Amino acid sequence: MRLSRYFLPLLKESPADAQIVSHQLMLRAGMIRQSSAGIYSWLPLGFAVLKRVEQIVREEMDAAGCQEILMPGVQPAELWQESGRYEAYGREMLRFDDRHERPMLLGPTHEELITDIFRRCIRSYRDLPQNLYQIQWKFRDEIRPRFGVMRGREFLMKDNYSFDLDLKGAKRSYDNMFRAYLKTFKRMGLTAIPMRADSGAIGGDMSHEFQILASTGESEVFFDAAFEEIDLTADDLDIEELKALYAATDDEHDAKAVPVAAERLRHGRGIEVGHIFYFGTKYSKAMGATVAGPDGDDVPVEMGSYGIGVSRLVGALIEANHDEKGIIWPEPVAPFTLGLINLRASDQPCTDLTGDLYARLENAGVTVLYDDRDESPGVKFATMELIGLPFQVIVGPRGLKAGVVEVKDRRTGATEELSPEAALNRFAH
Amino acid sequence: MRLSRYFLPLLKESPADAQIVSHQLMLRAGMIRQSSAGIYSWLPLGFAVLKRVEQIVREEMDAAGCQEILMPGVQPAELWQESGRYEAYGREMLRFDDRHERPMLLGPTHEELITDIFRRCIRSYRDLPQNLYQIQWKFRDEIRPRFGVMRGREFLMKDNYSFDLDLKGAKRSYDNMFRAYLKTFKRMGLTAIPMRADSGAIGGDMSHEFQILASTGESEVFFDAAFEEIDLTADDLDIEELKALYAATDDEHDAKAVPVAAERLRHGRGIEVGHIFYFGTKYSKAMGATVAGPDGDDVPVEMGSYGIGVSRLVGALIEANHDEKGIIWPEPVAPFTLGLINLRASDQPCTDLTGDLYARLENAGVTVLYDDRDESPGVKFATMELIGLPFQVIVGPRGLKAGVVEVKDRRTGATEELSPEAALNRFAH
Repeated sequence: MRLSRYFLPLLKESPADAQIVSHQLMLRAGMIRQSSAGIYSWLPLGFAVLKRVEQIVREEMDAAGCQEILMPGVQPAELWQESGRYEAYGREMLRFDDRHERPMLLGPTHEELITDIFRRCIRSYRDLPQNLYQIQWKFRDEIRPRFGVMRGREFLMKDNYSFDLDLKGAKRSYDNMFRAYLKTFKRMGLTAIPMRADSGAIGGDMSHEFQILASTGESEVFFDAAFEEIDLTADDLDIEELKALYAATDDEHDAKAVPVAAERLRHGRGIEVGHIFYFGTKYSKAMGATVAGPDGDDVPVEMGSYGIGVSRLVGALIEANHDEKGIIWPEPVAPFTLGLINLRASDQPCTDLTGDLYARLENAGVTVLYDDRDESPGVKFATMELIGLPFQVIVGPRGLKAGVVEVKDRRTGATEELSPEAALNRFAH
Repeated sequence: MRLSRYFLPLLKESPADAQIVSHQLMLRAGMIRQSSAGIYSWLPLGFAVLKRVEQIVREEMDAAGCQEILMPGVQPAELWQESGRYEAYGREMLRFDDRHERPMLLGPTHEELITDIFRRCIRSYRDLPQNLYQIQWKFRDEIRPRFGVMRGREFLMKDNYSFDLDLKGAKRSYDNMFRAYLKTFKRMGLTAIPMRADSGAIGGDMSHEFQILASTGESEVFFDAAFEEIDLTADDLDIEELKALYAATDDEHDAKAVPVAAERLRHGRGIEVGHIFYFGTKYSKAMGATVAGPDGDDVPVEMGSYGIGVSRLVGALIEANHDEKGIIWPEPVAPFTLGLINLRASDQPCTDLTGDLYARLENAGVTVLYDDRDESPGVKFATMELIGLPFQVIVGPRGLKAGVVEVKDRRTGATEELSPEAALNRFAH
């Protein structure tokens, strides 16, 4: 993509109402624009990252044996009246009547809808287990939306729902998702630490939040150093052992009762990016989602739900990956792998070489943002540092004479001079 | 995917309220389930087709030089008050107040929002032309939703918006989309005939509906036989020549004034799947979307919008591709390329060979739905005919003895006997 044609409305200043760094950088880098409080449009750069995050989540859910569906945003109130949550849910649920005066709502979550689908489609224990998921926009009418996409009103979630005949099966489904979540976040270059969460009366030890570490995180977290040493994506990972390790957010942490030696206790700040939760027969009993069990009796199914904040992750990734100049995208979620900078657009040999390199990189399947604008080197460098592509390839008249271009790593700042050919081979796998 | 694990709730009977064949078949084949009038959940088989249609649309819009964004579903009423449409739009627009009593609405379309984004981001004619698109769920509170996903309340649209400095540029953008639409529908195996549509006062000849032919189509259409003879995706296609050919829906058709010889006039039934529309400065003037022109004066931008009904296309594809036994998916949109049928799951050599073929096809990247259920051949054949995968590979004890499997083409019904090796090579490109 040529930057001169790319819809990338950069801002020089951070808007005053953007309090956290990811919100500031997403606005400055032209990733999003707000249309109402907590409601955003995703512009090309932001949309590209959102799609990459979404696709990683999708691939990992598919790999874990889950099946993708899509439920609607607008839901009938009657399903929520059945489950008993219609009255209980607060004003975060946006309610309205349709033109025939039927009460409807904008889905803040989808437990009722999926339970309804399940009870209409599945009749026998032989068709269990099931694990269905969707990646869908949800709406919660937050009283004070803030922090950009980190706490918006309209937000993209991946939500899974598992259905099992008994507790043993439900536990297997839970552990399967636990493992899939560790892999999902790791693939984005994030270390997510599972922390036991409050699950009310039913969950027991089957409720975990996944927190990623970022100095700007929303809450303080404490955890066993072992989390930094274990390969969280190993196939032989012992989930029970991992669950037994100490990890707590500040509201659960009790400094006096920590079962970890002081030198082994880490602390930092965390951002919640996922939550997995076993809720048993809460919805299946209320809504009559039963299957015929092995002995012919009707059995309410055991359910769990598993969420990942997909649009929130875009903000969280920035909180965990930035410096004073801008964003530093991990390669797996980067909107382009590299930025190609032509230092002197008015110099014909320079422009020819850059254009040639651009065409060959694109042909090799490398995603490139080519800054072909007639701007100063300073403006071009600042743009690339701000939008945070993992690598920069810089072509200038001086290097051209020496037969080299410069390749720069955005994260480390390390540069090397390579022949154009070698630079091409570096990225074209 | 093994059918025994696939979430595919088939129905034996068509629900009484499903009046048209695509609605009946989508319900029977377990593609969708209704949650409220005109609002559906997409189950795995339906979702897979929806995603394939969406991806073809996306690739063709990208190839035409358009950039993808995503605007929110919930919009502020104030933008519609600015454009003057808030009062004018009927009860199809679902309106509500948020918890702070700000009037909002569920977007039935996005002209106002995109115009707002444009005016906040683009200031100079040098940044034109622009063509932005999204693939987003919209909501129209139809008084009588019907025909399944063909006229639902919540539906998936691809909508582009073009921005140009002058009419000449707008015409270029229009023709670019005209051409992209012909390619998009062709890639799905559909012939879409562009028909001049009523555009009110401003459109002139820049408003076209794209109608695909299906015997069950919603309106009668008349068109020049030339449409059947021209390669609509040729790079040297003359758009002006094409636009000059006669094509009209029944409400525009005047039998006495047709400029086509009787033997060259075709008629049939059509389903509208796309609409492109030039509307000039209607929104840019009302909302102040101007750029500084070459001479420094502020110029309101010339705009056009271009829609494709993505979820509607899933229904339209079925209307155009089915027989009395079920759906016949064109390969480019098929949820799986082939159905693998094990005629006798209780026969070990049969099951071994089928399992082996399944593994090798999947390894070769072929998408396969493997009917591994312990059901009769009749049930398995009926299932495959109903869900309409382009090919079936049938493994049975008799063929096994002769060293062959049967490959069946769902559309033609033609069968051939091949060695398992040859069958594998047939699909593994």
